[in-house]
Amino acid sequence: MFFQAFFIFSLLFLSSDAAVLDFCVGDLSVPDGPGGYACKKPSAVTANDFVFSGLATPVKLNPLIKAAVTPAFAPQFPGLNGLGISMARLDLAIGGVIPMHTHPGASEVLYVVTGEICAGFISSSDNKVFFKNLKQGDIMVFPQGLLHFQINSGKTTGLAIVSFSSPTPGLQITDFALFANDLATELVQATTFLDAATIKKLKGVLGGTN
Amino acid sequence: MFFQAFFIFSLLFLSSDAAVLDFCVGDLSVPDGPGGYACKKPSAVTANDFVFSGLATPVKLNPLIKAAVTPAFAPQFPGLNGLGISMARLDLAIGGVIPMHTHPGASEVLYVVTGEICAGFISSSDNKVFFKNLKQGDIMVFPQGLLHFQINSGKTTGLAIVSFSSPTPGLQITDFALFANDLATELVQATTFLDAATIKKLKGVLGGTN
Amino acid sequence: MFFQAFFIFSLLFLSSDAAVLDFCVGDLSVPDGPGGYACKKPSAVTANDFVFSGLATPVKLNPLIKAAVTPAFAPQFPGLNGLGISMARLDLAIGGVIPMHTHPGASEVLYVVTGEICAGFISSSDNKVFFKNLKQGDIMVFPQGLLHFQINSGKTTGLAIVSFSSPTPGLQITDFALFANDLATELVQATTFLDAATIKKLKGVLGGTN
Amino acid sequence: MFFQAFFIFSLLFLSSDAAVLDFCVGDLSVPDGPGGYACKKPSAVTANDFVFSGLATPVKLNPLIKAAVTPAFAPQFPGLNGLGISMARLDLAIGGVIPMHTHPGASEVLYVVTGEICAGFISSSDNKVFFKNLKQGDIMVFPQGLLHFQINSGKTTGLAIVSFSSPTPGLQITDFALFANDLATELVQATTFLDAATIKKLKGVLGGTN
Amino acid sequence: MFFQAFFIFSLLFLSSDAAVLDFCVGDLSVPDGPGGYACKKPSAVTANDFVFSGLATPVKLNPLIKAAVTPAFAPQFPGLNGLGISMARLDLAIGGVIPMHTHPGASEVLYVVTGEICAGFISSSDNKVFFKNLKQGDIMVFPQGLLHFQINSGKTTGLAIVSFSSPTPGLQITDFALFANDLATELVQATTFLDAATIKKLKGVLGGTN
Amino acid sequence: MFFQAFFIFSLLFLSSDAAVLDFCVGDLSVPDGPGGYACKKPSAVTANDFVFSGLATPVKLNPLIKAAVTPAFAPQFPGLNGLGISMARLDLAIGGVIPMHTHPGASEVLYVVTGEICAGFISSSDNKVFFKNLKQGDIMVFPQGLLHFQINSGKTTGLAIVSFSSPTPGLQITDFALFANDLATELVQATTFLDAATIKKLKGVLGGTN
Repeated sequence: MFFQAFFIFSLLFLSSDAAVLDFCVGDLSVPDGPGGYACKKPSAVTANDFVFSGLATPVKLNPLIKAAVTPAFAPQFPGLNGLGISMARLDLAIGGVIPMHTHPGASEVLYVVTGEICAGFISSSDNKVFFKNLKQGDIMVFPQGLLHFQINSGKTTGLAIVSFSSPTPGLQITDFALFANDLATELVQATTFLDAATIKKLKGVLGGTN
Repeated sequence: MFFQAFFIFSLLFLSSDAAVLDFCVGDLSVPDGPGGYACKKPSAVTANDFVFSGLATPVKLNPLIKAAVTPAFAPQFPGLNGLGISMARLDLAIGGVIPMHTHPGASEVLYVVTGEICAGFISSSDNKVFFKNLKQGDIMVFPQGLLHFQINSGKTTGLAIVSFSSPTPGLQITDFALFANDLATELVQATTFLDAATIKKLKGVLGGTN
Repeated sequence: MFFQAFFIFSLLFLSSDAAVLDFCVGDLSVPDGPGGYACKKPSAVTANDFVFSGLATPVKLNPLIKAAVTPAFAPQFPGLNGLGISMARLDLAIGGVIPMHTHPGASEVLYVVTGEICAGFISSSDNKVFFKNLKQGDIMVFPQGLLHFQINSGKTTGLAIVSFSSPTPGLQITDFALFANDLATELVQATTFLDAATIKKLKGVLGGTN
Repeated sequence: MFFQAFFIFSLLFLSSDAAVLDFCVGDLSVPDGPGGYACKKPSAVTANDFVFSGLATPVKLNPLIKAAVTPAFAPQFPGLNGLGISMARLDLAIGGVIPMHTHPGASEVLYVVTGEICAGFISSSDNKVFFKNLKQGDIMVFPQGLLHFQINSGKTTGLAIVSFSSPTPGLQITDFALFANDLATELVQATTFLDAATIKKLKGVLGGTN
Repeated sequence: MFFQAFFIFSLLFLSSDAAVLDFCVGDLSVPDGPGGYACKKPSAVTANDFVFSGLATPVKLNPLIKAAVTPAFAPQFPGLNGLGISMARLDLAIGGVIPMHTHPGASEVLYVVTGEICAGFISSSDNKVFFKNLKQGDIMVFPQGLLHFQINSGKTTGLAIVSFSSPTPGLQITDFALFANDLATELVQATTFLDAATIKKLKGVLGGTN
Repeated sequence: MFFQAFFIFSLLFLSSDAAVLDFCVGDLSVPDGPGGYACKKPSAVTANDFVFSGLATPVKLNPLIKAAVTPAFAPQFPGLNGLGISMARLDLAIGGVIPMHTHPGASEVLYVVTGEICAGFISSSDNKVFFKNLKQGDIMVFPQGLLHFQINSGKTTGLAIVSFSSPTPGLQITDFALFANDLATELVQATTFLDAATIKKLKGVLGGTN
């Protein structure tokens, strides 16, 4: 009898058109909105939607920077959609570097899994640099939108896990933004004070034109 | 001459009462507000304010649950204040368990550093359980405010790093909330359907009274 | 002439593809997103979309708890979609109880329409219980995500109206989350310290399996 | 032994400078910020801070409008501070009216406790009026910032409880804003198209000057 | 070789289903949600989506108010969708007036491009009027949701650019809301204390009925 | 009599400790919090707090960039505190340039008051450049946190007014962040791929050391 009673009560929140969703697993196949992707049909959601194994192994390192960034943002891990958080994995070989970059829409916390990493950011108000050599287990926070970098400062491979205050933090690597596109050399020159030769050399390295 | 010119330009954003802050390192000595702690004086902020080493080593495990949670929330790591993110470290000995709990104000992502962890959460709309056995390097997301748990499901010590979508996520362990205080046994009984003997036993274990 | 003049001016904000919407009545027939349901076509919206009569009469009480919760959340009352607020009605017969529960995404204010209600919540930081006997006309606030309960403490039927800081606050009743699903008894045991017999009994009452 | 073990574990979250607050009861004696009042010292907070009895009885009705609004906003009920919600009580004698007004910072839901109330709002995009006669138990939502009104449309006293999506919704009664201050008649005339005589008459009624 | 290396690295963030969007140009052809319009397909977005020329020339002035408002809100300028900001142009002939109005969902800053403008707003807490005569180049802020107005107080045409803290601020002109619709004269009378003759006259001017 | 009646009603919202504030003019003399400055005492606030004349005249141009940025952010114009918006003035002599920069916490809309300005931004997802030549009266939006620039592309002085979706948008000029501080040349080199000579030259120009 108790069973029946509760079953009735419970039904209140079970009818398919009435349930308040606790999550909104992203459906990448329909248009997204300013707040994220549309929600996958709840009945099709399984535990697998909330688990992501893409950070378990590093991607191939980029030989120039001897490093790699593997994102677990909403587009890769749609279970994060709408939940205000995401992760990424940083692999840094000896001498590896994650170049100067920003995340336009999120703050970041970095945790050193193995190795030693010199990390820092630059404030906008007075261009002051805040950096420190991080040991295994240390964490560091990088405030939203500010230029920052990570360098392997140890004698072994470095591995770090970083977390962001948004499921879609974005990643703008300054060198790529300036040199890996068709922005005219004159415009880069006028807006950065670099000379044309330097710009053209970096455009060559990074695949930019013009 | 260039130096001088830029110096003037730069001054615009350097005067001490005019600079827009990029961060707000918490000052725990003055009253906080709904959005977090008041900001430490910018001139006193150093790189150390953005780095926290308290997750580098586990705290002593709790023998009952064979596990420990070490938080790096704004009160422990004031550099996170206002930045929408925080971290914690989970240590689980063989057989260790982080009991059913919620974070009232944040979603969580868990990254398995070492070992094997069975983790899950329970939806509110239909009490459906989403859980999975996570291997090293896997990540899992726990939507805001829902009951969830982590169990060492492997044959070695487990270590996980979790990140939250708030600098002050809170942590409400259901057993502690129900049994580790002076809430009268009759009230616990009335609101949980547990019998008085069970409640009194758990109050005994967890230090509750009444 | 004045009419014409203003008519022209007014037209600026009347063309169907240009008007800024003041509301977004939910259309439950298309996929929702993290911020709520897609908006019903404005031309189809009427005053009825902003009025809900479902709280005017109680649903049948649940005999076990001698109480009922009737939600007016966005799924039941789509006019609330996107407006940051919702309501529900609590009916408590003599001896009735709304068991320990949380709302994962909202704070709550309760207003006692009739009767006397003992209500309380448990803080997460120190497991402190805040509870009080409320008389007719009293209001009480329950901070976001914390465990709380309501008990009819009077000698008459109790009626309360509660309001939430979200159109989709969710409702997770701890007993249902733990015992009204297929979560294995061993997992419940490991994560709650309840013994297997207690768990199996409550699973029996609440319709759980395993 | 278990007690001891858990006690240690528990201490993690109990030290006075480390606990994450679940609430921020407003301290009206120190300056507030854009997000609300500074928090009262947690150790001084009691259950009474979360309960408010000021809505239990109506204030004296205003004879002109035969109605009264009794707010339970953060300044009256500091326990709401930072929690995104508030309430108010509307009393309407027979023929009573809550005049045209807006809440600059919140949406509103109204619940009819007793009586019959004609309530409506005006959209900004096309000046369309949405209004309806509400019976006991009906609820109606008023989207943020839009002009709305409530009129006792029944043959008995009316009582309504309204809830807002902010602890500080504000209340701007159009007539008071226009006529109950020292805004020069010429300025009111120029910005409302009312004639000077009408303005001066209403200024007289509402206590305005100039 | 460097080129190749970076190219591989870069690919990570280039695959069409994986890129985090930096913007969400509104697609007005599909249903919108509470947070704004659905996003236009990124591959179809061009620089033109971020530029709007509709403020470059004034619309025809309204002869009654000798003024015009030209909005650049998300419906007119979909590139603003989701970005938390919008603009509008105010043209005021000599003697021109933007009548009392509110923006239900946004604060506003006004910049005087040419001329002299008397602008003010009315606080809700005490009906206090804050107004000032603004000269060319002055800026003034109008807090969210409060009644405000602008009057050409100079001897030349006035031009102002206003900016809002939302892509969809809304605009509710009090006179239009009260008199340019079919809200019954009796209801307007009851909720504004204006007499029937005044109301009917203004309804006549503004195109209202009933 | 009417006067008295309303006066009583009005008093409800006038008592000094009960009024809900419509604004929070920043008090720069006490510590700020993550949401902005503490509020100036309401009784001391005047219309002047909401008006700022600092954009009415340009500051001295910087000879190197032949341009100047004059901010009206919360530190300069405390009336904006908490209101989600701010402004700035851009002056560009013939050939003037606002170098590559970001605003870490805000989107921006630019309005061309006089002259012709070539403005653009770079997306983070694929380094695509969106730029256009803007004529007088054109507006352009720059999504939050992305690198962007403005160049005088006309034959006359250029003047633009920009508005931000935050009272404290910040401004990080890439060249200043990299070269106008004491960040070691080796670190700049490692994180930007620029050669040491280029770095040292720019440090010389911009006042950097190391």
